[in-house]
Amino acid sequence: MTSGEDSLIARYFRPLASDPGAFDLGDDAAVLNALGDEVVVTTDAIVEGVHFLSGDPPESLARKALRVNLSDLAAKGATPAGFLLTLALRSADDEWLSSFARGLGEDIGLFGCPLLGGDTVSTPGPLMIAITAFGRVRTGKMVRRSNAKPGDRIAVTGTIGDAALGLDILKGGAAATALADDVAAKEMLVGRYRVPQPRNVLAKAVSDHAHAAMDVSDGLAGDLAKLCAASGVSAVIDARSIPLSAAAAALLARGTVGIEALVAGGDDYEILCTVPEAGFEAFAQAAGLAGVAVTSIGTVIAGTLPPRFLDGQGRAIALPRLSYSHF
Amino acid sequence: MTSGEDSLIARYFRPLASDPGAFDLGDDAAVLNALGDEVVVTTDAIVEGVHFLSGDPPESLARKALRVNLSDLAAKGATPAGFLLTLALRSADDEWLSSFARGLGEDIGLFGCPLLGGDTVSTPGPLMIAITAFGRVRTGKMVRRSNAKPGDRIAVTGTIGDAALGLDILKGGAAATALADDVAAKEMLVGRYRVPQPRNVLAKAVSDHAHAAMDVSDGLAGDLAKLCAASGVSAVIDARSIPLSAAAAALLARGTVGIEALVAGGDDYEILCTVPEAGFEAFAQAAGLAGVAVTSIGTVIAGTLPPRFLDGQGRAIALPRLSYSHF
Repeated sequence: MTSGEDSLIARYFRPLASDPGAFDLGDDAAVLNALGDEVVVTTDAIVEGVHFLSGDPPESLARKALRVNLSDLAAKGATPAGFLLTLALRSADDEWLSSFARGLGEDIGLFGCPLLGGDTVSTPGPLMIAITAFGRVRTGKMVRRSNAKPGDRIAVTGTIGDAALGLDILKGGAAATALADDVAAKEMLVGRYRVPQPRNVLAKAVSDHAHAAMDVSDGLAGDLAKLCAASGVSAVIDARSIPLSAAAAALLARGTVGIEALVAGGDDYEILCTVPEAGFEAFAQAAGLAGVAVTSIGTVIAGTLPPRFLDGQGRAIALPRLSYSHF
Repeated sequence: MTSGEDSLIARYFRPLASDPGAFDLGDDAAVLNALGDEVVVTTDAIVEGVHFLSGDPPESLARKALRVNLSDLAAKGATPAGFLLTLALRSADDEWLSSFARGLGEDIGLFGCPLLGGDTVSTPGPLMIAITAFGRVRTGKMVRRSNAKPGDRIAVTGTIGDAALGLDILKGGAAATALADDVAAKEMLVGRYRVPQPRNVLAKAVSDHAHAAMDVSDGLAGDLAKLCAASGVSAVIDARSIPLSAAAAALLARGTVGIEALVAGGDDYEILCTVPEAGFEAFAQAAGLAGVAVTSIGTVIAGTLPPRFLDGQGRAIALPRLSYSHF
């Protein structure tokens, strides 16, 4: 009676859909109860060969597809409320699907973000995973890109550039050669590429303290430029203060990679935000309580010039590209 | 400063995003104001070579991608509230994109369903368009698949089987040969395949009168079987009462196509619903006022047998397949 798609859904995804609004994935639509708040909606798709490699493990693909969306919710100050999954598959491979569903199920629990529904389609082309995620915010409280003010401190969470180095290692680039003997560093960097760590525990602090915020997905330099353009401001960054992992710092010191590549690399999925000077200490304290490192890297200034990244001598670092564009 | 994706969005899609919650597509997320109602969410993707043909005009692809989702909202008794668009493109072709955006823009206005955001990604594979649509219902009022009751009348809107015949014509099948000289009939059937007519004007009547409803997307036979299974009931359908267009009826009379193919064909995007006998006249009257034809085609009965489609002699018609499955 049931078609291939139905039995695929019943087997792999129904067990993940425990929210009452998902109706056991047995209907054409799901219901999202907004609980009187506003609903923040965001969508991000990842494509085989473009955003991930064919050999990436299905478990980590599931996590990455969900986490890049959770990262958007975190940066907007929203609490995860659920998501829809669209899977375009060449075939219904049991081993692949069960691994994918396992990774997804663990992250659903970890981030409290229930599966509400979706669509599974076949494709003759590359695998594609598109997720639409929903979050709740108090009405009018979504943290925008466009509200940065001159004088705000600019902060980022975690470390920058690790994921780009991880991708370079997977492609056998310079970082792979330089770290040939350092398995732990390579694993850490590849892990940062494959499984982002969205900063959802920081959502409340961002909502309470930040003037403007976005997640860093296309490269710190390009994303900061977007935030400044949306806010009608400029920025000065002290490049030495950009937080790096020990592995990235070592590669930078050895000249394997330049800071201009680390800030344009993408896939960081850290939060970039601007916080008024008077509120910065409280923000840093809240972040510390949430267990997330935040680093002040510069200041919002008036003007419409592109943000400048200054070196130790106060000279602007040339940035040949700000971020990666697929078109 | 802006990347290829940004300028593509600015050029083609920002003009379509007039809802305040879309923030001019300038942020990472959009805000959906639920206005105290519940939010119904649904997602459907279409893939080149699977759900549409490479030669299909971009304008009609845009309409189809949006309308298959609007059709889900209509069947759930929900009012369109907005949508997110994910486009996976091989290249950013101006002519294609401007035609796509024009079709989308017209339907946004026609159905009052604003573009809220989305994601544009590159793919080396087939074109894919995934839309997540949002609708509003009064709390608890989404019309489910699972509430059909024995004794309910089973109704469908519009006509069944036209889109399957349209696809057959595009593929040069038997219907193309039979209608070689009837350009008007061919155009009508191809139009039904390419541009569904979602019955959103009927949403309130469905919400007011139907026990259970879904849209017919995979074939009437298969979708009715799903509705019955979800409701724990069975059904008897009088095959002669299934509403057909003049073109489909002529092809059926000539033996070009059988009724079993028309009810398994898919892509109808009509509403299938069950309405208690006492409320059927009021439902039909409301549909008439909304300008949508509804036809009673059978009755919900107790039991768990698959629905039976009876011919003029009361014999069950053999259905070799109920609907199309991509896996």
